[in-house]
Amino acid sequence: MKKLMECVPNFSEGRDEALVEQIIDEVRKIEGITILDYSSDKDHNRTVLTMIGSPEQVKEAAINSAKKATELIDMSKHEGAHPRMGATDVIPFTPVASVTIEECVKIAKEVGAEIGSWGIPVYLYEDAATKPNRTNLTSIRKGQYEGFFEKIKEDEWKPDFGPQEMNAKSGCTAVGARVPLVAFNVNLDTPNVEIADKIAKRVRHIGGGLRYVKAIGLKLEDRNQTQVSMNLVNFEKTSVYQAFEMVKMEARRYGVNVVGSEVIGTVPMKSLIDVAEYYLQIENFNMNQILEKRLLDEQ
Amino acid sequence: MKKLMECVPNFSEGRDEALVEQIIDEVRKIEGITILDYSSDKDHNRTVLTMIGSPEQVKEAAINSAKKATELIDMSKHEGAHPRMGATDVIPFTPVASVTIEECVKIAKEVGAEIGSWGIPVYLYEDAATKPNRTNLTSIRKGQYEGFFEKIKEDEWKPDFGPQEMNAKSGCTAVGARVPLVAFNVNLDTPNVEIADKIAKRVRHIGGGLRYVKAIGLKLEDRNQTQVSMNLVNFEKTSVYQAFEMVKMEARRYGVNVVGSEVIGTVPMKSLIDVAEYYLQIENFNMNQILEKRLLDEQ
Repeated sequence: MKKLMECVPNFSEGRDEALVEQIIDEVRKIEGITILDYSSDKDHNRTVLTMIGSPEQVKEAAINSAKKATELIDMSKHEGAHPRMGATDVIPFTPVASVTIEECVKIAKEVGAEIGSWGIPVYLYEDAATKPNRTNLTSIRKGQYEGFFEKIKEDEWKPDFGPQEMNAKSGCTAVGARVPLVAFNVNLDTPNVEIADKIAKRVRHIGGGLRYVKAIGLKLEDRNQTQVSMNLVNFEKTSVYQAFEMVKMEARRYGVNVVGSEVIGTVPMKSLIDVAEYYLQIENFNMNQILEKRLLDEQ
Repeated sequence: MKKLMECVPNFSEGRDEALVEQIIDEVRKIEGITILDYSSDKDHNRTVLTMIGSPEQVKEAAINSAKKATELIDMSKHEGAHPRMGATDVIPFTPVASVTIEECVKIAKEVGAEIGSWGIPVYLYEDAATKPNRTNLTSIRKGQYEGFFEKIKEDEWKPDFGPQEMNAKSGCTAVGARVPLVAFNVNLDTPNVEIADKIAKRVRHIGGGLRYVKAIGLKLEDRNQTQVSMNLVNFEKTSVYQAFEMVKMEARRYGVNVVGSEVIGTVPMKSLIDVAEYYLQIENFNMNQILEKRLLDEQ
């Protein structure tokens, strides 16, 4: 049974294609790594890379690509719409198969220590966080690259690795571990975004709703509809069907109907198999009954 | 993208473990083949092997294991509860990934030709069938080993490969291609098996129900419940949720409720992802959004 971990490093360069290719080449060199996707956004001036491999492979790939980004990217000249604080802005590790979140935390710490040794301040986040207020990436990144020259001097923001001094060229880097995220949107037959927003607030954790749901209401201009846009940050504990049924339930009070839903990007098979299991009322189902699971396990 | 085919040969020996191991060893020798399962039944005196590999690998594994079974099994001495007609009784090929049913038919014909060249009568069945009345394995096997000495003389039962004469030692062999089958049972809160049977008859194809559903009613003695036991022989065309909802619908007229369901054995992931897609009303879903699908495709 092969151990598989996913790693999705974000680099602060999305305009210079040749430069981005040099970073990705560092990953291509490592045998056994699968690059699922990489895409650059010119407005954000940012590249997001998704790769999968054994813990040792993704560790090596994360270190080598971050090393190349450190060499090539100068943050003092960076402009872009997306919040960022470093050349290698963020490196999350996620379990895929036969790997625990604890093993992801271990790899995150090893990668963090290595990057810290290059003179770059490193913050551990999500499940790798060393303090409660470092769990959330948004809190860490607040103030961004420009603000960090001051922020880093505060005791509260002493880095987990590397110097307590901003690196002007490379900025600082967040390295973390987290369970896979499912981006799931539910579309409503009302053009009234206030209704979508009210539903989102009832469904999400901070509003008193489901523990692992983040949600906002959005307008779908071209369809004259609205949407409850959700991130399910732990689908094993708060399943997709629970989020879906709760949106339906809250929509009822406004006489609004669910007209469809969307799954955004890549999701682990189990997040949707769990849904089938619920609606079909399947008794004693085991993931080993899935042919593809067996094939991956046998490798 | 790796081509994967499943092959599930059935051999007429389930008591002599050492003999069965010799047959399985022929498959173990072939690099790249995954043996998902093999199990022998003493009452049936039969062994069922489930293996997956590239078309060329499963072809070689099917031929080599059938060759060994031909060498070691003497059908003139065979006794067992399960219907059978040959030492290598049946060899079905099924698409798993990046393979069409037509490619399975091609492999089935190649394997059939090879076995025929050993002096064993071979019948192609299901999607590989050359005549409509050879589609169904039950029709081909009717009369079994003992009856085939006469049956084979009929024009209608001239084999697709090999001599039109029964092979006393090896019997004859059916080689076929079929889409994956999903064994799916729905449990009812009534102890009355007549109700389960009436529902089965409405849901299944021969009774006017769903095109790719076979169904019977069964009693679950230990639970004081009954069950509609189904085989979905083409889950891409008749989905699991359709069968489930139709059982629920028919149960309503008897005031009977569905209390659960069971998925038996291994199923392709898509058979259950389709269910999630339906109940969540997901728009524009693509199987490439499944992480595990991508991992298998990249190999």
